[in-house]
Amino acid sequence: MRNFKLTLSYDGTDFSGWQTQPGHRTVQETLEEAVARLTGESGIRVNASGRTDAGVHALGQVVNCYSATRLEPTKLLPAINAHLPDDIVVQSVEEAPDTFDANRDAVRKLYRYVIHDGEVPSPFLRRYACHTRRRLDASAMARAAGVLRGRHDFRSFETEWPNRASSVRTITHIAVNRFGDYLWLDVEADGFLYNMVRTIAGTLMNVGRGYWPESQIAEILQAGDRTLAGPTAPAQGLFLVRVTY
Amino acid sequence: MRNFKLTLSYDGTDFSGWQTQPGHRTVQETLEEAVARLTGESGIRVNASGRTDAGVHALGQVVNCYSATRLEPTKLLPAINAHLPDDIVVQSVEEAPDTFDANRDAVRKLYRYVIHDGEVPSPFLRRYACHTRRRLDASAMARAAGVLRGRHDFRSFETEWPNRASSVRTITHIAVNRFGDYLWLDVEADGFLYNMVRTIAGTLMNVGRGYWPESQIAEILQAGDRTLAGPTAPAQGLFLVRVTY
Repeated sequence: MRNFKLTLSYDGTDFSGWQTQPGHRTVQETLEEAVARLTGESGIRVNASGRTDAGVHALGQVVNCYSATRLEPTKLLPAINAHLPDDIVVQSVEEAPDTFDANRDAVRKLYRYVIHDGEVPSPFLRRYACHTRRRLDASAMARAAGVLRGRHDFRSFETEWPNRASSVRTITHIAVNRFGDYLWLDVEADGFLYNMVRTIAGTLMNVGRGYWPESQIAEILQAGDRTLAGPTAPAQGLFLVRVTY
Repeated sequence: MRNFKLTLSYDGTDFSGWQTQPGHRTVQETLEEAVARLTGESGIRVNASGRTDAGVHALGQVVNCYSATRLEPTKLLPAINAHLPDDIVVQSVEEAPDTFDANRDAVRKLYRYVIHDGEVPSPFLRRYACHTRRRLDASAMARAAGVLRGRHDFRSFETEWPNRASSVRTITHIAVNRFGDYLWLDVEADGFLYNMVRTIAGTLMNVGRGYWPESQIAEILQAGDRTLAGPTAPAQGLFLVRVTY
């Protein structure tokens, strides 16, 4: 068996998230079926860097997948895409060492949350950004975000979830930028808790709207209490941008 | 009755075009129903600068509409949007002179055709661009397009249609630009024939692929024969950008 590393982008709008669930259209199952149809193998399994939720998009999700196919990566790329619906596109295929595990070996992931704060929404961005009528103070959000950088217990930013051993993670990069009526929040970390980026986005938006002082972010982080953070921002603004190995 | 000028954007993907047709979801009918629900008037009619076909988008379609509503334009804008599905958004509402007719008074319209020629398609652009694997020569397309500028009989670029009095139109601006893996063709004219921009796009793409020499565009224009032009490029790349009065 050969081990392949695939990098893929998908429009999450019409998927019930990454992970296979009976009776739902998921990215995992759609991709496994496409590879299986191509290679004629049953039991194809793809192992992702991590799950994405319903409505969340990916620019650079990474998976690995074992197959006995003799096709070379340059042939596999267009062949898999020909078997996929047009809301999933494989961007690259490489052969990886036998031991490569897209989930376990991920060192860092970068997520981006996109916000549109123009007065009137755009029909072209309703699937790809969170719209808010109220103008946000991006500079205040950027300053407030700074206290989240580094190694912290992020349980204030974790939606209830089968509890993990630890909610300590390291954010290596966090930034808020504006271009015209668009803001984007970038968060790169060694791992993410459930709904972590969307909770950070919803919390920073409360700062951007002037509801909360910038200093409140440090208090929320220290309290270790999810009820003090802002709302979970909607899924359609979130993109998994890249995974670093 | 007051006469209102509305500027709207829509994602044409899920509409059977502008014009009301029984049993189909159209932009015209959706907008008329939204205004009628808001004002409580029956028989609301919206009169557009022109029709757009199934799958064609608008950034700045303009319509006028008579209503007895007492609401001011600044109140009408959010109120109409609240009654519209999220793939149509009214961008502005102004009160217009009684005699303003969005169709008859249009002086020029600008259309944009968007092409993506990256090797791998993007799931985020499948609704908003035409994808072609083969790299296009944008400079050759831009030079070839130049001969279409000015007043000409464009019947070579008109899909069969209930014949109009004349297929003479004046293109005031035509340009092809590239940014990264994206090209866009802008065409501004005093009027457009059926499928004219999509036929110009399909024809210029044959030049961009190196199938045809640049000089062939002048020959096609002079021949007055639709069978000599290139294919009609797909609807999803086309945007009505703005209407000038």
